[in-house]
Amino acid sequence: MIKHALNVTREKDFAAWYQAVISEADLAEESGVRGCMVIRPWGYGIWERIQRLLDDRIKATGHENCYFPLFIPLSYFEKEAEHVDGFAKEMAVVTHHRLVQKDGKLVPDPEAKLEEPLVVRPTSETVIGAAFSRWIQSWRDLPVLINQWANVVRWEMRTRMFLRTSEFLWQEGHTAHATVEEAREETMKMLEVYRSFAEDCLALPVVAGEKPENERFPGAVSTYSIEAMMQDGKALQAGTSHFLGTTFSSAQNIRFQNAEGELELAQTTSWGVSTRMIGGVIMVHGDDDGLRVPPRIAPWQVVIVPMLRDQPEDAEITAYCKTLQAELAKLSALGEPVRALLDLRPAKAATKRWGWVKKGAPIVIEVGGRDVAGGNVSVIRRDRLYREDGKLDSAVVARGQLVEEAPAMLESIQQALHTQARERMDANIRRDVTEFAELEKAFEGSKPGWVEVSWSKPTGAELDKVVERLKALKLTFRNVPGDAAAAEGACIFTGASAVERILVARAY
Amino acid sequence: MIKHALNVTREKDFAAWYQAVISEADLAEESGVRGCMVIRPWGYGIWERIQRLLDDRIKATGHENCYFPLFIPLSYFEKEAEHVDGFAKEMAVVTHHRLVQKDGKLVPDPEAKLEEPLVVRPTSETVIGAAFSRWIQSWRDLPVLINQWANVVRWEMRTRMFLRTSEFLWQEGHTAHATVEEAREETMKMLEVYRSFAEDCLALPVVAGEKPENERFPGAVSTYSIEAMMQDGKALQAGTSHFLGTTFSSAQNIRFQNAEGELELAQTTSWGVSTRMIGGVIMVHGDDDGLRVPPRIAPWQVVIVPMLRDQPEDAEITAYCKTLQAELAKLSALGEPVRALLDLRPAKAATKRWGWVKKGAPIVIEVGGRDVAGGNVSVIRRDRLYREDGKLDSAVVARGQLVEEAPAMLESIQQALHTQARERMDANIRRDVTEFAELEKAFEGSKPGWVEVSWSKPTGAELDKVVERLKALKLTFRNVPGDAAAAEGACIFTGASAVERILVARAY
Repeated sequence: MIKHALNVTREKDFAAWYQAVISEADLAEESGVRGCMVIRPWGYGIWERIQRLLDDRIKATGHENCYFPLFIPLSYFEKEAEHVDGFAKEMAVVTHHRLVQKDGKLVPDPEAKLEEPLVVRPTSETVIGAAFSRWIQSWRDLPVLINQWANVVRWEMRTRMFLRTSEFLWQEGHTAHATVEEAREETMKMLEVYRSFAEDCLALPVVAGEKPENERFPGAVSTYSIEAMMQDGKALQAGTSHFLGTTFSSAQNIRFQNAEGELELAQTTSWGVSTRMIGGVIMVHGDDDGLRVPPRIAPWQVVIVPMLRDQPEDAEITAYCKTLQAELAKLSALGEPVRALLDLRPAKAATKRWGWVKKGAPIVIEVGGRDVAGGNVSVIRRDRLYREDGKLDSAVVARGQLVEEAPAMLESIQQALHTQARERMDANIRRDVTEFAELEKAFEGSKPGWVEVSWSKPTGAELDKVVERLKALKLTFRNVPGDAAAAEGACIFTGASAVERILVARAY
Repeated sequence: MIKHALNVTREKDFAAWYQAVISEADLAEESGVRGCMVIRPWGYGIWERIQRLLDDRIKATGHENCYFPLFIPLSYFEKEAEHVDGFAKEMAVVTHHRLVQKDGKLVPDPEAKLEEPLVVRPTSETVIGAAFSRWIQSWRDLPVLINQWANVVRWEMRTRMFLRTSEFLWQEGHTAHATVEEAREETMKMLEVYRSFAEDCLALPVVAGEKPENERFPGAVSTYSIEAMMQDGKALQAGTSHFLGTTFSSAQNIRFQNAEGELELAQTTSWGVSTRMIGGVIMVHGDDDGLRVPPRIAPWQVVIVPMLRDQPEDAEITAYCKTLQAELAKLSALGEPVRALLDLRPAKAATKRWGWVKKGAPIVIEVGGRDVAGGNVSVIRRDRLYREDGKLDSAVVARGQLVEEAPAMLESIQQALHTQARERMDANIRRDVTEFAELEKAFEGSKPGWVEVSWSKPTGAELDKVVERLKALKLTFRNVPGDAAAAEGACIFTGASAVERILVARAY
């Protein structure tokens, strides 16, 4: 039996395994500040890769980055009732701007109370809408296509690292358009940017589709999401794109003079992804030895570990490794220069090896005296860690051959992670459920996957009733897949004639 | 006489001119939230360039990026008295985590008061120190070299865009070392990174040196800065690097076991630059036609403006411009691919031209029907906007020639901006003042520049008296230039024997 690097397996306790990966891969840790985490270098390096790759795509679709204030006056929220209802319960409120010493303790200075409290942004539609109303006068000013990378705060009662933290990092795109058609087109364009980014860069297969009414962003006319399947079968919403209609343009008075000289309200959209994606990467690609990072978002794609023993030959091994690192750094893979690290920290080679395995570096290369003598290197591919006999699969190959093959190997690892995840997801979506009792039964197992059913798209109170029934089973609607087959027969919830197919799942 | 693009000149009203540049170049605007600005795409694009170039240098010197919480519990601050004194008066305090409706208004929910108020970080020594105390146990864990890009909040009473805003963006590096020597070496290394970055990338000549005692960061043993001279002669502190000794390691209990097995306090440093640098770029490189952006930090280095007239030939002009853009994008200049934009917005060509002049794009290329027919383009260099006769200097050159010369032209503009600023600074530092009365007189003019004098480096109450005398003249100590000549004669403040040379200036 294989002795894995983590002391808890996915099978045994998925939630504990998730925390173990985060800890053992040095991704993040509790900060001591309620609900907030520290993102450590390996975790933040993954986020930097995500930022760089996604930012390129956001810019390539015509958007520009800006920066808007962290603080939002309460009065901005009061203008849009539905939006307030959605966020009021979880907002951090700044009420003072100075501290004083009192009885040997620091306290907010009663003399420095703000006239109007400020909210720490939970999302920026209101404050960006206010800017749009200044920027937009004529149809010539449209579309306005902007994005910001920022921190936001939603005061969560139960937090879980990357998935649900009081503060998190994200990008939020905000756009304004002259027509409904254009704004809807933008909403779908960004959904597709997220879908293809998740698949191509994160190796994360996702289902893109529209959320039902009860899952809409507060203030949105339509909300779309990408949903990924974790290894425990649960769904993770990994990105959303909203068509906001005139909700925020009414509240913030974003009006423009159209070509006929009449005043019209702009049609707006917003869309975002966050550090939550990293939680998804962990739960889709991790295994019992830790994380496996898809090469495109790996801070280091190839890590070289010299096997030093405080012997005279150490200098030769180090020199050999430096040459190898330089050779690798000259290569390109997956459209970018190869990122190769030589790990010269003062620690044992075995500790380093397993450290990088747990972190999920795609390729780990070990170099000892014998490798140098033979002109070889020992190569570990993180996507195939063990041989069939359960031994670590470390292959000795000529250095020149490794250098020649490294780009293709990285591409193959990226592909392999995607294929594994895609096959797992496809195998775990049931589409044959036609009655509620069957649905109930489908979710009785330990890793139930998802079920796609036909429904009649009820609204209002009727929908609420359905949602309650699902809630009792800890189930939620995920989305109506854009590429789902046509609905057939009766709705499994209402019995009425079905109009579309919707995904039901447990979710994070 | 030249009719300039701005309606106020530097000569007439420098402060109004500064605001006009920010507004006319679309860099930033007031947000409606007290003390906070909106950084617009052109301003944020400059910040993104600064981030990318400086981040490369921070990583090249061995640092890794992390992310720490926005919120800091009050108790973290209480541990370091001097640090609290420095920041308590300007901290935004979060006291509630929920809003409720009361009499039709949103108010902080009295039921959701935090047990311990949280401060929005004004700087992160305390919360990062707490992490260091978890990460560091042994000398083998040292050095710890990290950096974060983040927003911070210091509640300023009088704000000015980019220079002093309640919220601003920055990077803050934090490191821990085993010895004083190593920590001091790090402090100086990062000062040099800032100095060379300012000179090479921002074309900003600076003086690097140590701050006197009264200007130290709260809690620092030594503070170093880079100081730049604005066109009105005032100084702008553009970056700081602090040797913190054991101030924060005592407060946060950052201890390590040394090679001999004894527990020691770590020696820490911190260093930062912020969006303030953009204020410096404006006040050093701007002119009466707006901003001039050094090519290395220009979001777009070459902007192509097609002169379209709603005529059939428009299509041909546009096609010609697209070819030109593609040719330029294949080039490299200043170590990176050339960033060339084709401006196809629906606006008049003259409006676009002057828009890009005010924004300070290094090269603006106009293409009309006659240019296309002749295989030419019309080129405007932002660093030499006018001919000697006061007319706009727009040169017609063959398209092929422009493409061939563009990289050298960008390098020459980068160099020219630096040289102009360097000559101005050098010409405006007086080093011949040997008496206080002379110093007083030196600052009587309208653009007095700086004065470097010999002083005896008084401390405590004696220093306070000197600082008060300077304050009465609206003067401050800037720093003791690292490359200043040896001190000679008597201190102009105390009459005692001088030990070093220090810069005196008005400052932002």
